Amino acid sequence: MKILLIGANGTIGSAIDRELSSRHEIVRIGRKSGDFQVDISDSTSIRKLFEQTGRFDALVCAAGNVKFAALEDMSESDFALGLQDKLMGQVNLLLIGREFANDGASFTFTSGVINREPIRTGSSAALVNAALDGFVKAAAIELSRGLRVNSVSPTVLEEAMGKYAPYFRGFKPVAGADVALAYAKSVEGLQTGQTYIVG
Amino acid sequence: MKILLIGANGTIGSAIDRELSSRHEIVRIGRKSGDFQVDISDSTSIRKLFEQTGRFDALVCAAGNVKFAALEDMSESDFALGLQDKLMGQVNLLLIGREFANDGASFTFTSGVINREPIRTGSSAALVNAALDGFVKAAAIELSRGLRVNSVSPTVLEEAMGKYAPYFRGFKPVAGADVALAYAKSVEGLQTGQTYIVG
Ligand SMILES: NC(=O)c1ccc[n+]([C@@H]2O[C@H](COP(=O)([O-])OP(=O)(O)OC[C@H]3O[C@@H](n4cnc5c(N)ncnc54)[C@H](OP(=O)(O)O)[C@@H]3O)[C@@H](O)[C@H]2O)c1
Ligand SMILES: NC(=O)c1ccc[n+]([C@@H]2O[C@H](COP(=O)([O-])OP(=O)(O)OC[C@H]3O[C@@H](n4cnc5c(N)ncnc54)[C@H](OP(=O)(O)O)[C@@H]3O)[C@@H](O)[C@H]2O)c1
Repeated sequence: MKILLIGANGTIGSAIDRELSSRHEIVRIGRKSGDFQVDISDSTSIRKLFEQTGRFDALVCAAGNVKFAALEDMSESDFALGLQDKLMGQVNLLLIGREFANDGASFTFTSGVINREPIRTGSSAALVNAALDGFVKAAAIELSRGLRVNSVSPTVLEEAMGKYAPYFRGFKPVAGADVALAYAKSVEGLQTGQTYIVG
Repeated sequence: MKILLIGANGTIGSAIDRELSSRHEIVRIGRKSGDFQVDISDSTSIRKLFEQTGRFDALVCAAGNVKFAALEDMSESDFALGLQDKLMGQVNLLLIGREFANDGASFTFTSGVINREPIRTGSSAALVNAALDGFVKAAAIELSRGLRVNSVSPTVLEEAMGKYAPYFRGFKPVAGADVALAYAKSVEGLQTGQTYIVG
């Protein structure tokens, strides 16, 4: 399969790359790194990306930013970041990407644990993650041509504990290699409308 | 209690009004109807509302619009409506309303069944409803002064089947009076971070 991997250079993306690259052609995409660049928060940039990559069999997104701040300090514009970047970024990858997707292609998005187990500063992340999981469940039943869409909702990764441990006290981190398996299940399996919880 | 009821004139709002008005002071608010007017999709309008109503003990929102259309016809801007209106409208009622809320006040928002049981044309509604349920769960743990926030997620109402039956074949509708009980549980109880599923 020809797989577009957005965020290929990141903590999760590089684990996905290791899991899938021996069996598939991986097109590595980042904001600055990779074979191609995209800013998922900008739908013009997304369309330009697909015009460069051409048709594909699977798209995996392991990228997306939200604002982390105490709820007390969060304003409308702080929520707007997550809506435009991690949430609509991934929704737009499907809305635009379907034009470039081969029959039977899959879309696999990344949400995360924070809507299942909320943490301090996580109100926008919880909103966005839940929205993504709700979107894939509903969008899946309306897709045509055998197109599929799933999300992966990992807990914090072992490889990210250096940065994130203070936010995730008491959470049991999961190995990136185990998170990557969920993406393989989505890409290489046949399920749709699923949220794969890891950890 | 002094309860601000947004959407008081609507199908759900009027059932909430009947349930709560014998025990509490209800301030009825609508886009055009009611004692005061607000457009929840506009944060300036929200702030103006609170300056008119003054302090309160509970806010209930039974209002919020999303675009219903086949996924095939949905674009980024169609999703933007639900994000700005039903989703950020209710988030902003909390972000701004907390300045006007008495200690111990509650916020009760309305999501809906569509993220739990997706239907054709419901991809934006599913996204928005899930986002709201995720938001209340995370925001609740960060609120101070005993402030609380919950959502109510009703299935389709008996009173709405005249309009909505073709979209909800096979769904067992629930009486508005039963939906209203969930709002009473949120307002008059002590729980927070909950999504009350009705139907
Ligand atoms: N790490 C965790 O423990 C964890 C757990 C659960 C969920 N998640 C979620 O998984 C996603 C990825 O997390 P991560 O920790 O792997 O991130 P990361 O290590 O910071 O890597 C992010 C990757 O995404 C790319 N990127 C960032 N913003 C982008 C944008 N607007 N458009 C296109 N590409 C963009 C970056 O490109 P460059 O290489 O060019 O910088 C990089 O390749 C995030 O949404 C995060 O919330 C992470
Ligand atoms: N009806 C159902 O079966 C059902 C089931 C599950 C969830 N829901 C959700 O519950 C909410 C209310 O539904 P409903 O059927 O009761 O609606 P409805 O009968 O159409 O009534 C809507 C009410 O909200 C007000 N309103 C509409 N847009 C507004 C805005 N932007 N700002 C402020 N007020 C606004 C209206 O004001 P005016 O009176 O001035 O027009 C009206 O009072 C919706 O979000 C809907 O998705 C409904």
